[in-house]
Amino acid sequence: MTYQAPVKEMMFVMNHLAGISQVASLPSFEDAGLDSDTAESILSESAKFAQEVVAPLNWAGDQQPSYLKDGHVITSPGFKEAFAQYVAAGWQGMTHAQEYGGQGLPKLIATACQEMINSANLSFSLCPMLTEGAIEALTVAASDEIKTRFIPNMVSGKWTGTMNLTEPQAGSDLALVRTRAEPVGDGTHKIFGTKIYITYGDHDYTENIIHLVLARTPNGPAGVKGISLFVVPKFLVTDSGQIGQRNDVHCISLEHKLGIKASPTAVLQYGDHGGAIGYMVGEENNGLAYMFIMMNAARFGVGMQGIALADRAYQKAVSYAKDRVQSRDLAGSTGPVAIIHHPDVKRMLMTMRAYTEGARSLAYVTVAALDAAEHSSDEKTRAENHAFYEFLVPIIKGFSTEMSVQVASLGVQIHGGMGFIEETGAAQHYRDARILPIYEGTTAIQANDLIGRKTLRDGGAAIQAIGQQIAATEAELAASGTAAANVMKEKLGAARQALEQVVMYVLAQTKSDIKAVFAGSVTYLQVCGLTLAGWQMARALLAAQQHQDEDSDFYAAKIATAQFYAQHLLTQVPGLAMAIVEGGSVTNALTAEQF
Amino acid sequence: MTYQAPVKEMMFVMNHLAGISQVASLPSFEDAGLDSDTAESILSESAKFAQEVVAPLNWAGDQQPSYLKDGHVITSPGFKEAFAQYVAAGWQGMTHAQEYGGQGLPKLIATACQEMINSANLSFSLCPMLTEGAIEALTVAASDEIKTRFIPNMVSGKWTGTMNLTEPQAGSDLALVRTRAEPVGDGTHKIFGTKIYITYGDHDYTENIIHLVLARTPNGPAGVKGISLFVVPKFLVTDSGQIGQRNDVHCISLEHKLGIKASPTAVLQYGDHGGAIGYMVGEENNGLAYMFIMMNAARFGVGMQGIALADRAYQKAVSYAKDRVQSRDLAGSTGPVAIIHHPDVKRMLMTMRAYTEGARSLAYVTVAALDAAEHSSDEKTRAENHAFYEFLVPIIKGFSTEMSVQVASLGVQIHGGMGFIEETGAAQHYRDARILPIYEGTTAIQANDLIGRKTLRDGGAAIQAIGQQIAATEAELAASGTAAANVMKEKLGAARQALEQVVMYVLAQTKSDIKAVFAGSVTYLQVCGLTLAGWQMARALLAAQQHQDEDSDFYAAKIATAQFYAQHLLTQVPGLAMAIVEGGSVTNALTAEQF
Repeated sequence: MTYQAPVKEMMFVMNHLAGISQVASLPSFEDAGLDSDTAESILSESAKFAQEVVAPLNWAGDQQPSYLKDGHVITSPGFKEAFAQYVAAGWQGMTHAQEYGGQGLPKLIATACQEMINSANLSFSLCPMLTEGAIEALTVAASDEIKTRFIPNMVSGKWTGTMNLTEPQAGSDLALVRTRAEPVGDGTHKIFGTKIYITYGDHDYTENIIHLVLARTPNGPAGVKGISLFVVPKFLVTDSGQIGQRNDVHCISLEHKLGIKASPTAVLQYGDHGGAIGYMVGEENNGLAYMFIMMNAARFGVGMQGIALADRAYQKAVSYAKDRVQSRDLAGSTGPVAIIHHPDVKRMLMTMRAYTEGARSLAYVTVAALDAAEHSSDEKTRAENHAFYEFLVPIIKGFSTEMSVQVASLGVQIHGGMGFIEETGAAQHYRDARILPIYEGTTAIQANDLIGRKTLRDGGAAIQAIGQQIAATEAELAASGTAAANVMKEKLGAARQALEQVVMYVLAQTKSDIKAVFAGSVTYLQVCGLTLAGWQMARALLAAQQHQDEDSDFYAAKIATAQFYAQHLLTQVPGLAMAIVEGGSVTNALTAEQF
Repeated sequence: MTYQAPVKEMMFVMNHLAGISQVASLPSFEDAGLDSDTAESILSESAKFAQEVVAPLNWAGDQQPSYLKDGHVITSPGFKEAFAQYVAAGWQGMTHAQEYGGQGLPKLIATACQEMINSANLSFSLCPMLTEGAIEALTVAASDEIKTRFIPNMVSGKWTGTMNLTEPQAGSDLALVRTRAEPVGDGTHKIFGTKIYITYGDHDYTENIIHLVLARTPNGPAGVKGISLFVVPKFLVTDSGQIGQRNDVHCISLEHKLGIKASPTAVLQYGDHGGAIGYMVGEENNGLAYMFIMMNAARFGVGMQGIALADRAYQKAVSYAKDRVQSRDLAGSTGPVAIIHHPDVKRMLMTMRAYTEGARSLAYVTVAALDAAEHSSDEKTRAENHAFYEFLVPIIKGFSTEMSVQVASLGVQIHGGMGFIEETGAAQHYRDARILPIYEGTTAIQANDLIGRKTLRDGGAAIQAIGQQIAATEAELAASGTAAANVMKEKLGAARQALEQVVMYVLAQTKSDIKAVFAGSVTYLQVCGLTLAGWQMARALLAAQQHQDEDSDFYAAKIATAQFYAQHLLTQVPGLAMAIVEGGSVTNALTAEQF
């Protein structure tokens, strides 16, 4: 088995940290009679699919990437058939409304299932992930007519969705978007322009592809305030819902990428043959706001990709470390031993494990907050959870993906020379991981969001509230008083205080020296990620202590991993905080010419 | 120009940190009338060759790797011709004795030249690097007959050399080597076995290849004490020095690698057709000791590859950051600006720059110590410099290569989505870098050496002597009293104290809990690397302050980079030290089954 979904670990996080029972009792879900056991059944089904159908395609897809032939994208062998099974099993519709054919399940449960598909095969998982974001945006912003025409077939997986933002001159800076949308007079627009880096912008999985496209109408204001959102299907859809004529959007090339090679990354040309017919979503000039709905979901999704990839790389490294026999045990042995017994290999594996478990716990807690924000009957609860979710999204994206690059790199290192040989497969994870801190907004873009919209705008209220929750966990650790709890309390407390110091600095200094503060933005994100994931590891430690009698091996490992996190990862935080608070000016000291 | 050799920066390090004038006045060199100006002329010649001949092949070599055809290795287009130019210009012989046709130059100067070739093209540079190590080993250990037969043609570059250690079951653990050497009776041996991962194990650059091979004689003891070293030429060499018959060593396959694809990585089969004729080097069963001579040179060389790659990745990122226009300046601008003006891009560039300058300074200082260790007329000076060099080799290797992976990754990040597209070239550096912490001994192997042979064996004498030198630099910083010097003094002092605390811990605890101590070995190496490179940046800061009037832009940038190093990199050290001292036990807490 190349991938084994960590169902037990996921259930631990859902039960003890993310509160599956509270989520299940939210008004929208309680009729379904959901509980921890039904969640586990769903996860087990998902695990089977991920392990048996999707994971085996991962390496082959890397070796035989998607390609363009006579204007059509041919995807990697087996992917189309696997996607058909994904659709047939109804996985795409898990969280969507029953009126559109979905199953209306909590996002917490869906997130665990998505993690598995991501671990199994990042390239494969991108197609459902982008479709998911497109459904979200249409659900929130589109007219009933558009919803009816497109959403049910996307929820079923019959059609897929894409996100068209980037253009050659407009990457992180969407103000530079040039794609034009000209009103035809019948309520539709004709779209003209070039979009690049469109994931699954064309493919052969489904009969239709629904593109969501940012474009400018003729008289809109300059910059991001003049961008509108359009639905542009690959094939037009007749009023009776049938596939109609081919629309004027064409894949003119695919990128030659470092990783995720099975997923086609398209250059899409709109309007070279008269104009692509597009339907405006929501209000004119409000496209960016709608795209952000999609983007928030996609950013969280990419964060999950980081966690998923880290877990896959970890599993591969563990397996190799148990098999590979090399050198004697440092404490003495009659012959060479499996390298998992060597302390530095353990350090690398523990690092991979601690990062992955910490980031997963934080992500599940975050998505449980989203479920509460969307479904709680209490307005204050909704608002609090919404603020928590909004604060966490850039952290889940930035922290989980940056750590995935580091974890995949450690995975290669554990394989030694074998890790550098492509056939081993560890190198694929290292290559695949590298896109994660870039797409759906680079880590710097996440960090700008974290400082600008999420910290300064509310005067630090959201992060200060989180700081209080962390302090409450510290008090629980103190009350527990075990050796592991004491270690965690000390390191978590030091990290929290360092984080609070950074927040004070950000709040106090942004007006007087914005460039110095933003020089620390990514490090601030890193400090938040390390500390908040460490907080979840602290909660995990407390839960594991309570349940230790039930399964001593599992819970003992959880406690040790939490302690490792405290002593090896939380200890980084004070130094990083110092770099932010003291090192902002010097970062900007050199002129462009001095580089 | 894809690569610009940083001659000015290199001369700064040689003049102000590594002491080129002291090196030039060593007995072996003073007759040559060397000085800083002659060194600069040599560097400028080397820069021209690296930039114009070698660098342009780098990307093409990645796209058209070496391959095996009918038992022969065909190297990437243009490489053979470039190597011929390398040989014609005499670059291979720079540091070797004039009796073998070399130029007898200091290794300090050669190191700067090698850095350039490495930056220009890692795959190309591996061939001279391995030849260099082979020459070293033969010079020290071989009989006069073998020396005469092989060394002059290797020094000239007419023939190349390789290092044959690894076998499928014997990677880091050379005790497991199985290759056999059977005495023929005429003083030669017949070699039988399979060696893997042999860099430039076969190629078409030269008429002959001189393999140095570890193998076991029939009655040797088990383990590493029964390994002998043999010279096994691809073609036998007649007594008159002519190319003779083909020897029984054959390349049976080339690896499909993540990076450095132009360099052929061979599986060599010895003795399938009766036995490959080999000549024992030095004494029987002493092979590992001789190989270590070669390995020390090669380890330092690989450390230089890390620095070289980091510089290349940095240059590429700077160039992109100056060209790419995206988003307004945070402090306000009328339109979008080049991304180099964005604080997080500056943070990434400064990180790349600070790591590269710090590691380079430390490496040049180290190789200057080797020149003194080999050539000083004073025994005590030789011994002190030798101890310093020996202590530093695993750090130069481990620290410089680990940081190169991180720097290459930042290089990709600065390119955003473009970084993930292979044609951009940033991804090649990310792929190429990944082998550096693995080959010639993984970082863990370096770290074991650092703790075992270099710290415990002398009771910490070497590192404590270095600590005193660092404290002396701190005193100079205090005497200077500038703002930058004060910042550096504080951070360097904190790092040194943390390092000293780690050394105390290692010395005190290894006997009682060796596994806990070695769980911190790589982190200890990291602490040493960060602190010692920071020390060199502190010395650079002091020198730059003294000379600031001469070239204010250059020296101001140097001071700012040193301060950035202090505030962003040295600040990591106390947290890492805490992880070593407190976190050793928990690293080993899980059994193999719990992973």
